Amino acid sequence: MANVPERGFPVSEFEGRLQRIQALMEDEGVEGILLMSEPEVRYFSGFHTLFWQSPTRPWFLFVPVDSKPIAIIPEIGAALMRETWIEDIRTWSAPSPDDDGISLLLNLFNPLSKQGGRLGIMKGHETSLRMPLADYERLMASLPGLDLVDATNLVRSLRMVKSGAEIEKIAHTCGIASNAFGRANKIFFEGQPFAETFRAFRMECLAQGADDVPYLAGGAGIGGYQDIISPPSQRLLQKGDILMLDTGATFDGYYCDFDRNYAIGKGDELSRRAYGTLWRATEVGLEVARPGATCRELFQAMNEVIAEMDCSEGRVGRMGHGLGMQLTEQPSHAAFDETVLEENMVITLEPSLSYGDGRIMVHEENIVIQKGTPRLLSKRADQELPIIGRS
Amino acid sequence: MANVPERGFPVSEFEGRLQRIQALMEDEGVEGILLMSEPEVRYFSGFHTLFWQSPTRPWFLFVPVDSKPIAIIPEIGAALMRETWIEDIRTWSAPSPDDDGISLLLNLFNPLSKQGGRLGIMKGHETSLRMPLADYERLMASLPGLDLVDATNLVRSLRMVKSGAEIEKIAHTCGIASNAFGRANKIFFEGQPFAETFRAFRMECLAQGADDVPYLAGGAGIGGYQDIISPPSQRLLQKGDILMLDTGATFDGYYCDFDRNYAIGKGDELSRRAYGTLWRATEVGLEVARPGATCRELFQAMNEVIAEMDCSEGRVGRMGHGLGMQLTEQPSHAAFDETVLEENMVITLEPSLSYGDGRIMVHEENIVIQKGTPRLLSKRADQELPIIGRS
Repeated sequence: MANVPERGFPVSEFEGRLQRIQALMEDEGVEGILLMSEPEVRYFSGFHTLFWQSPTRPWFLFVPVDSKPIAIIPEIGAALMRETWIEDIRTWSAPSPDDDGISLLLNLFNPLSKQGGRLGIMKGHETSLRMPLADYERLMASLPGLDLVDATNLVRSLRMVKSGAEIEKIAHTCGIASNAFGRANKIFFEGQPFAETFRAFRMECLAQGADDVPYLAGGAGIGGYQDIISPPSQRLLQKGDILMLDTGATFDGYYCDFDRNYAIGKGDELSRRAYGTLWRATEVGLEVARPGATCRELFQAMNEVIAEMDCSEGRVGRMGHGLGMQLTEQPSHAAFDETVLEENMVITLEPSLSYGDGRIMVHEENIVIQKGTPRLLSKRADQELPIIGRS
Repeated sequence: MANVPERGFPVSEFEGRLQRIQALMEDEGVEGILLMSEPEVRYFSGFHTLFWQSPTRPWFLFVPVDSKPIAIIPEIGAALMRETWIEDIRTWSAPSPDDDGISLLLNLFNPLSKQGGRLGIMKGHETSLRMPLADYERLMASLPGLDLVDATNLVRSLRMVKSGAEIEKIAHTCGIASNAFGRANKIFFEGQPFAETFRAFRMECLAQGADDVPYLAGGAGIGGYQDIISPPSQRLLQKGDILMLDTGATFDGYYCDFDRNYAIGKGDELSRRAYGTLWRATEVGLEVARPGATCRELFQAMNEVIAEMDCSEGRVGRMGHGLGMQLTEQPSHAAFDETVLEENMVITLEPSLSYGDGRIMVHEENIVIQKGTPRLLSKRADQELPIIGRS
């Protein structure tokens, strides 16, 4: 594939992120933020490893309001962290269940605690505590002077708006998955065990240049599928099936997240109508998704089209979300989310509807918000339900 | 590949798990355990989806001491949960940042709180809190009567010992990765960009029958590698490189976790000696790994061999761990872990050493503890450092 983006980022990218978060911290009177989740540690340090999949060790990055981030990490990550722009790297020999970084954190935070400083922690919507809760409770009990504040919105407001380099990585991943879906008629077929459909698609994404396909879910069933988050079964694809694959492939740690629907051999009339409704809802989404519009408005505009035939009684959930270092990021296109869209936000448009006898259909595109019509990162889905192996 | 294990488990498997945890809960006077992390929810329910990769929604499973588990989950997961053995499924339309399951949990736990009941939560070593900390704090503040206890060891003691069906899934995954490594000489070559080495190995694992390769890390460098958790670079494999790939492939949600080392074209003498030392340390591990031995003893036995040439000054960390639904599970083969090995524990033997000019080498096998010699699930590594493309 032509024009593969460079891996990693120049130091200036991290300097910019740090300046922006420090400006927000100053506004909020926060003296530092303690980060411990993979995307946040990576966002501010460049530390990029799949090793987070082992639950054994916690990893910490402290972002002070007035100096460069400090890494407090297991020794096993020191060599990789030294390749990033981080200079102050403090390590311990982990795992060490009695003291997995706690002494190092106490040393770091004792002065702040004594002066009653404000420490930011991410504890809001879409966050997890990526360290043992007992260790967290013990740590905070030893730092009684700290004024803890929720830094979720500070970090989220930064991460929602992507840099040019981030957008090119996401665009590249979306291009890879678009090319893989473009070969649907060659790699999917009637009689194929559904688990093989998944395997063929994963291999096609890798062949097209993906580093990995961390997320792949799908559904298939005569006249429509009933579930969109399942792993593959051994059921064979049948004539009349509606097949949906939803993929989160990655390149250099940045995701795409979109799906495609196909009919195997032939599509029933109701499924074709559902597909057309979703396609039109997405068109409306593409018209509404502009700097200044809110996620709620975007949801409502798509939902008006969906309401023509949806029978979920309003339980449609959200109709898209942010996209980048995670398969799903903030914001949510939902009635509760009044986030104002800004230039260079990367989002999904993901209308879904319930129809027929407990069937569901989802449709998804990935876009960048910009002045005027959004930039499509996924190749726009066909206007009519495509048929695999038309007979 | 012959003899692909059946996907999923019979209901009797879940009944057995429930009976065992309930017996432990009764011993400890615990009235229920609230689970919220992927492996634990899956272990007791059979709910298996990659959708956990979206951080947006929390998922809960409550295991009472005297009845079947209760699922408290986002509506989007209801169809898949209904396919499991769980009957009591309570859902909400998520995401809903103001009330992501909290009202449902309050309804469930209010009676227990009023009677001062003991509720188990996993908050110990190797756990995370997979819900927003602010929501957790709000929930617990509304349930002042609850006596919270750490259930980490209860759940861990169950999960460490595998059933026959679990072992066959892990064995199958290990066989797939062994077959993929068996083709090393065909898929790795001098001049190959390291990122392509990763891609080729992932595709080979899929071709051999893996569902996915969620973990793949590695290192390569002349005379040895310096880092074992990195993503791929674009550097070309060179003659004299020592190449290591460490893989966690999956089949039906069960992992393998082992690595292999190769020399590209030729291996330097020091690396060959390091390899031999690690191979012998693993032989010693295979002799010591018996029901009744402790993880500490296993560590010490391997460490005695390693000490012959290791120059990490005792910072070797652990030398293996449990394996199953996660890439790494408890226990740890480390001086701090006195877990007694039992029949049907699946573990890795993973000695590592530092040598030369900041080089590191790791070596790993996957085994099942049984009476006598452990069952090797990974095909035993060659006794001498294998050479790719011997010239």
